[in-house]
Amino acid sequence: MYILGLDVGTTGCKAVLFNVDGRLIAQSYREYLLYHPKPSWSEEEPLEVWRGVVETIKEAVAKSEVKVDEIEVLSVSAQGEAFTPLDRELNPLYRCITTWDDRAVKQHDEFLKLIDRAELFEITGHPSSPVYTLFKLMWFKENKPEIYEKTWKFLLWEDFINMLLCGVPAIDYSLASRTMIFDIRRLNWSREILEPSGLDEDKLPEPHPSGKVVGEVSRKASDETGLDEGTLVVTGGHDQACGTLGVGAINPGATYVATGTVESIVAPLHKPLLRREMIPMGFASYCHVAPNRYLILGANPTAGILLRWFRDKFGEKYVEEASKRGVSVYDLMMEDSSKAPVGSQGLLIAPYFMGAGTPNWDTYARGLIIGLTVAHGKPELIRAIVEGITYELRLNIETLEKLGVEIEEIRTVGGGARSKFWLQLKADITGKRVVLPDITEASSAGAAMLAGLGAGLYKDVDDAISKFYREFKVYQPNLNVKKTYDRFYRVYVKLYPAVKNTYREAFQVLEAAGREQ
Amino acid sequence: MYILGLDVGTTGCKAVLFNVDGRLIAQSYREYLLYHPKPSWSEEEPLEVWRGVVETIKEAVAKSEVKVDEIEVLSVSAQGEAFTPLDRELNPLYRCITTWDDRAVKQHDEFLKLIDRAELFEITGHPSSPVYTLFKLMWFKENKPEIYEKTWKFLLWEDFINMLLCGVPAIDYSLASRTMIFDIRRLNWSREILEPSGLDEDKLPEPHPSGKVVGEVSRKASDETGLDEGTLVVTGGHDQACGTLGVGAINPGATYVATGTVESIVAPLHKPLLRREMIPMGFASYCHVAPNRYLILGANPTAGILLRWFRDKFGEKYVEEASKRGVSVYDLMMEDSSKAPVGSQGLLIAPYFMGAGTPNWDTYARGLIIGLTVAHGKPELIRAIVEGITYELRLNIETLEKLGVEIEEIRTVGGGARSKFWLQLKADITGKRVVLPDITEASSAGAAMLAGLGAGLYKDVDDAISKFYREFKVYQPNLNVKKTYDRFYRVYVKLYPAVKNTYREAFQVLEAAGREQ
Repeated sequence: MYILGLDVGTTGCKAVLFNVDGRLIAQSYREYLLYHPKPSWSEEEPLEVWRGVVETIKEAVAKSEVKVDEIEVLSVSAQGEAFTPLDRELNPLYRCITTWDDRAVKQHDEFLKLIDRAELFEITGHPSSPVYTLFKLMWFKENKPEIYEKTWKFLLWEDFINMLLCGVPAIDYSLASRTMIFDIRRLNWSREILEPSGLDEDKLPEPHPSGKVVGEVSRKASDETGLDEGTLVVTGGHDQACGTLGVGAINPGATYVATGTVESIVAPLHKPLLRREMIPMGFASYCHVAPNRYLILGANPTAGILLRWFRDKFGEKYVEEASKRGVSVYDLMMEDSSKAPVGSQGLLIAPYFMGAGTPNWDTYARGLIIGLTVAHGKPELIRAIVEGITYELRLNIETLEKLGVEIEEIRTVGGGARSKFWLQLKADITGKRVVLPDITEASSAGAAMLAGLGAGLYKDVDDAISKFYREFKVYQPNLNVKKTYDRFYRVYVKLYPAVKNTYREAFQVLEAAGREQ
Repeated sequence: MYILGLDVGTTGCKAVLFNVDGRLIAQSYREYLLYHPKPSWSEEEPLEVWRGVVETIKEAVAKSEVKVDEIEVLSVSAQGEAFTPLDRELNPLYRCITTWDDRAVKQHDEFLKLIDRAELFEITGHPSSPVYTLFKLMWFKENKPEIYEKTWKFLLWEDFINMLLCGVPAIDYSLASRTMIFDIRRLNWSREILEPSGLDEDKLPEPHPSGKVVGEVSRKASDETGLDEGTLVVTGGHDQACGTLGVGAINPGATYVATGTVESIVAPLHKPLLRREMIPMGFASYCHVAPNRYLILGANPTAGILLRWFRDKFGEKYVEEASKRGVSVYDLMMEDSSKAPVGSQGLLIAPYFMGAGTPNWDTYARGLIIGLTVAHGKPELIRAIVEGITYELRLNIETLEKLGVEIEEIRTVGGGARSKFWLQLKADITGKRVVLPDITEASSAGAAMLAGLGAGLYKDVDDAISKFYREFKVYQPNLNVKKTYDRFYRVYVKLYPAVKNTYREAFQVLEAAGREQ
């Protein structure tokens, strides 16, 4: 018996096939395009994403040589916020508007005159921001009234895929939380938000708990995907939440750290944590995909992307050598940087190249390098980048701990988890036990666990975890190295407060320079 | 009739032959080695330097095809602080100890218990530092008592060369000022300093005004150098002072800026400027080589060296392309950086890679880059380096102006003056008229002018300047560009105060890390 976990991400989608014992059997990946009709707008073409989902399902199944009738059930893990308007016949009426699209700044700012930011946080668990679905729906109603009127449902990616597969517009609580319209304690759309927003509740999908059967693959969907008609469709969740389940993190203590282009830090909770000081820090707390669990989410928007930046702007020699030797350029860069001493000879880098994430949460912040001498070269800079990202992880962990969140160990996936050097560095800088799990396709694994739970293949979530989650390798902090890092870290955390005021000034100067040139 | 200007610098020496009308006829250059018996010690081999002087004289004369009997007079411009102990027979008893040698930190700190720092500043015009000759002589007496006893004279490079040429140990007031033993108002060795130091005045050379005949080239020196016996030897001066004269800067207003590895900023004064707030800023004020003139000296220890750093650590592609096209790698780098916009897209670099010079004067400071985004690459970084060095120049100029120093225009030489882009940038950032002089070998030209004055070839110093100093090209500030730079500069000056405290902490952490590893 087999389970399919689908993961619809920000730049591509994956289909991952697991057996009922939680072994990864086959997977497939497709990238899709992002469209930018204006520089700060960001859209996806709904049918291109759907085609990606269809192709990855077919490819994963073909690779696995599993018979489709042995695939019992599937579930979707999805990026947050992004949504598409559909008419009754399921035709997309506009492109999908994604997270990093800033068209709704005005709607956001105006809405905050109608409802208090703290109240919004109390209801939704999220500090308000124009990225959330709510404000973009308001933009739609204001700027595209004819499309708004014609829209039957505005669907996020989980419910969009569920709709096309089984004809039911079902969203789960965790992904619904990312709209800023969902009441995370009453577990339903919030009247307190819908009413002042002027939006219609019946244009939203139906919220369900994760891991619930909502339908079966239809004849039409079967024809398209090659899946058997009748294959069960189960609610999945927000990709960060699915990933957290995917590494078995459902109880306080085990923390999920996904180190990709962006780094996410997710800690499971028994109840939502809604302390007001979290609002300026940017921490969100909302529904987990595990039953009766919540989570708290922190993020560093510029993690692995800095290594790509370094490769593209300064790494020609690494690129040439990697191509000559047929190895990964990142492996070469990490190998080189691992030869630089602990603390990169006094070099500290604050990775705020696109603004600071949690907990400094500052859109004006930018990258900072301090401590440079003429002895510093590429190895020290690369190491300082990796150390800086990891200091920022420690800052998030320590801030979460001060907020009362329990963090015992880090279970980590993503590009950053491919480097043993970085894994050990995570342990040495944070002082935590760092676990590389056996399955690093955490979001798809989480979706598959929810699918299996929905289909009754597991007794309960602990049973599912016991099948899917195993430690592949454990990294313990080297306490001598940690002692040195403790010292550098104490300097690191003082940098942002020291230069904070200059960030806003520099931003204004740059804006003025842009107007003059 | 011809004049020889010799320049004994920190890494090499030059002989430059001028005609009596101030035209540069021929020149020659030799590098010599620096020895580091301990990492923070720095020495030169006296006879290697002497050999360099002899070879450059011969080569310059040979290139010029001038007959030696037409060379009337010579003079030496010399690096400061560095000295060699000689016995009666003129044998060096130890290597020359140069400026950036820190062996005398203990002697410096102990001496400040015997004499107040402000008093020392009042007498010598210099904020105290272990770099000065005084403390290294004390180190000698304490650590090499047998050599100290045997020493007839401790000579700096001007007096050393004069001694070997004409048998007279004659130093001028400007170079004597750099020992921290010289009373810049009484124009003699200071009893107030010599007495507590325990040093013997008769082991020091004789101080004379610059531009005074002190002897004639001896038979022996004639045999070695090829110069005619009887060629006049005239006192020259400290290289910064000679350079300032070399660009005709003897009256307040015209300021000498030498942009090499290090950048020096020298403004002429009618009287020494000895305000106590100059002490923590590191500004020195002492004897000019022009009669009855003084100067004030500021410096940025890491100017052009940062471009070499960038070339060596990140510039392989520029090096390859330069070699392929047969052009200068720095020209390529500057060309590329000139394409980045004014203000380098918000990137600011504080060039404190080896500590901050005047006026922030901080040995703990290190290089700082702020404002980084993933859009920044090599062109923006190079431009930001050049802009940062030039912001630092503006900071020095504005600080000097606040101290009451008049600065009307910048007359600039050195590697930095080879780039039109950088020359225009200096004008745009400082708002001053920037002049590239016809003769950029300013220190040698200044020495030659002093030689000519000593030999009575010129009526007075103004007459000499009228022969040697001509404007080659003038750069006026572009006021629109300046307006943008004014804004960036206002952010730039806030960076150092913001991070100042973290520099000392980071230094201590790095020291601790060094001990642990």
